[in-house]
Amino acid sequence: MARMLAPAAEALGVRFSVLAETADAPATQVISEVTVGDYTDYPTLKAFAETVDVITFDHEHVPPEHLEALAAAGHAVRPGPQALIFAQDKIRMRAKMDELGLPNPAWAEITSAADAEAFGRRVGYPYILKTPRGGYDGKGVRVIESLEQATTWLDEVGQLLAEEKVDFTRELAVMVGRSPMGQTAVWPVVETWQQNGVCKEAVAPAPGLADEKAQEITEAILKVAGALEVTGVMAMEMFETAEGFLINEFAMRPHNTGHWTQDGSVTSQFEQHLRAVLDLPLGSPAARDKVSVMVNILGADHKDLYQPYLHVMAHDPAIKVHLYGKGVRPGRKVGHVNAYGRDRDLVLARARHAADFIAGVDPDPHPQMPRPGDLDAEGGERHDPDTDVSEERA
Amino acid sequence: MARMLAPAAEALGVRFSVLAETADAPATQVISEVTVGDYTDYPTLKAFAETVDVITFDHEHVPPEHLEALAAAGHAVRPGPQALIFAQDKIRMRAKMDELGLPNPAWAEITSAADAEAFGRRVGYPYILKTPRGGYDGKGVRVIESLEQATTWLDEVGQLLAEEKVDFTRELAVMVGRSPMGQTAVWPVVETWQQNGVCKEAVAPAPGLADEKAQEITEAILKVAGALEVTGVMAMEMFETAEGFLINEFAMRPHNTGHWTQDGSVTSQFEQHLRAVLDLPLGSPAARDKVSVMVNILGADHKDLYQPYLHVMAHDPAIKVHLYGKGVRPGRKVGHVNAYGRDRDLVLARARHAADFIAGVDPDPHPQMPRPGDLDAEGGERHDPDTDVSEERA
Repeated sequence: MARMLAPAAEALGVRFSVLAETADAPATQVISEVTVGDYTDYPTLKAFAETVDVITFDHEHVPPEHLEALAAAGHAVRPGPQALIFAQDKIRMRAKMDELGLPNPAWAEITSAADAEAFGRRVGYPYILKTPRGGYDGKGVRVIESLEQATTWLDEVGQLLAEEKVDFTRELAVMVGRSPMGQTAVWPVVETWQQNGVCKEAVAPAPGLADEKAQEITEAILKVAGALEVTGVMAMEMFETAEGFLINEFAMRPHNTGHWTQDGSVTSQFEQHLRAVLDLPLGSPAARDKVSVMVNILGADHKDLYQPYLHVMAHDPAIKVHLYGKGVRPGRKVGHVNAYGRDRDLVLARARHAADFIAGVDPDPHPQMPRPGDLDAEGGERHDPDTDVSEERA
Repeated sequence: MARMLAPAAEALGVRFSVLAETADAPATQVISEVTVGDYTDYPTLKAFAETVDVITFDHEHVPPEHLEALAAAGHAVRPGPQALIFAQDKIRMRAKMDELGLPNPAWAEITSAADAEAFGRRVGYPYILKTPRGGYDGKGVRVIESLEQATTWLDEVGQLLAEEKVDFTRELAVMVGRSPMGQTAVWPVVETWQQNGVCKEAVAPAPGLADEKAQEITEAILKVAGALEVTGVMAMEMFETAEGFLINEFAMRPHNTGHWTQDGSVTSQFEQHLRAVLDLPLGSPAARDKVSVMVNILGADHKDLYQPYLHVMAHDPAIKVHLYGKGVRPGRKVGHVNAYGRDRDLVLARARHAADFIAGVDPDPHPQMPRPGDLDAEGGERHDPDTDVSEERA
């Protein structure tokens, strides 16, 4: 993720240094000032912080006590530890959403077999258990079919977050940028599609989402960002249900569901994150085209991406391929493809073709949920492809 | 210029190394693999070339014999020395344009007082003298009012290029990308405005330029690129005259008149240059908006750009400011501003305000030539702001 901040730093004319876990991490290929070190080691983190004006993170796994210590020592940690703790600890985040009156699914903190049994009785089986900390891309999440499954895992880890299994129509996501002084900018709500717990696609704006729903979601993320005093960009993932939406997860950093903004928005999430953490005025989050699509390239059959990359570039001169300079492993995110235009079905088909062709997977013949193109048949309101793009963003 | 290639390298997922003249050159701030050395020293150049697959340049001043030696040693030098020599030597370029039947102004090679006298007799005074090599941004160019002025300079330098002083209506520029296999892509023709010999503004597409004129210019640059077997991007600057256009200068690299493509085109000139020199299929050169404008930030009153930068970002959240991380000196290019939208006068006003405010100059009250907004009064065909942007680029 850090490497994608580099182009924004170049354009903004700011110095950008990275503390990388290994000397061959993708970020080291594109950032001039690299320190290799362990972010869980406080002296390493502290020494790095001494060299910069502002410190930020591209994941949630930095120990909270280190963040607190850096802030206490006077370093500008953005977002601050008081905000990041909510992205790090899913139980605290659920409690905070209840406190803010925002739509949580049914949930409970589980520290005993009795808790697990009570939750199963309340919502029925199956339900979802998550480790409160450290999970991502579907890791640290299990579907629980019986009390025994729950207690077996609980015995290993001691504390779990239980959530009802939501009967959703689709998944949505929204992102906000927020500066230290409280200026905010929210991008259009997107529809996302997860495959095996990993984000595979995002479509902006979310097809057929009524304006009042989009407004409600925008107000919700602004409420969270303000209440937690977030600095930087934050993503909120949601389940759309028959009644409205339920909050799924948060990330307090640039997020996969916002990669479309690199080519699809006036201000990319990476530029906005830098503007926000540096306390610069925020940029416009307006979409540049009627529809923008991001499709992840997940490691599959092709170990060498170069030949398919050539084909895709030749096949579609307007496709924007972003590769991360990572080795290919099955299911690993090694890049993504952005496409934009006026006709959603065409843009989506272009991006899917490119991503699947580079990875070496057959187009999935069985999408697991209604796809955007199917919404007509489902009675969803369809975006009119003849309507003009939005007027002047200036 | 090299630093602006870095974002393209990040997205394309290619490794990018730079041979920088000094350890604090702007490129070193944003590129991970930096060698500091003198490009006029062949062993330095050769050692650097050993570390990369393809070598390219962001200026024309590398000694031609070094380029020849690198190519002879089997290094992929792109564009090749057989092409670069024309960008380096303005007399050879003039002769080549004559050979290709392309519209040169009256010109002559001047190596004696007799040559200078004959040229003055042919075109009258004043006329233009240029050093054939090494000039840029108006350096190495003089307006000659008398034979004595010409011979005085000639005595110093031994060889000069004489050109008639063209009575032009405005200046135009066009850029092409060309790959080793001969694939080409031409961006829309732009209008440019030079201030004291330095490019100050570019407007894409050139306002009021008839389609057949744009086509003629496109065919001309394709003819040059093909004849010289250019690899990479090339810029052609022109004078528009009552009869058509006359060729002014060439650059065989990303060029100031193409900076608008960073935010205004599907494929920026920097991405295209990398795609071309790496023999990747080229990207679409289509404009993303009806009008795109670039205005240079030239060093002026403000030594510290930070406070005005804050104002400009707050004033116009859709403006795209690009700063180069350079110290401010009077007239030095320290950055540029891109803006895009539908209403040309508005877009131009936004970009000019931002660039002038950051630099600390009053808006120029005396533009030296008809400005785009004045073309109506001059009888030029005006781009209709109600016409829609071009359709699908896919």
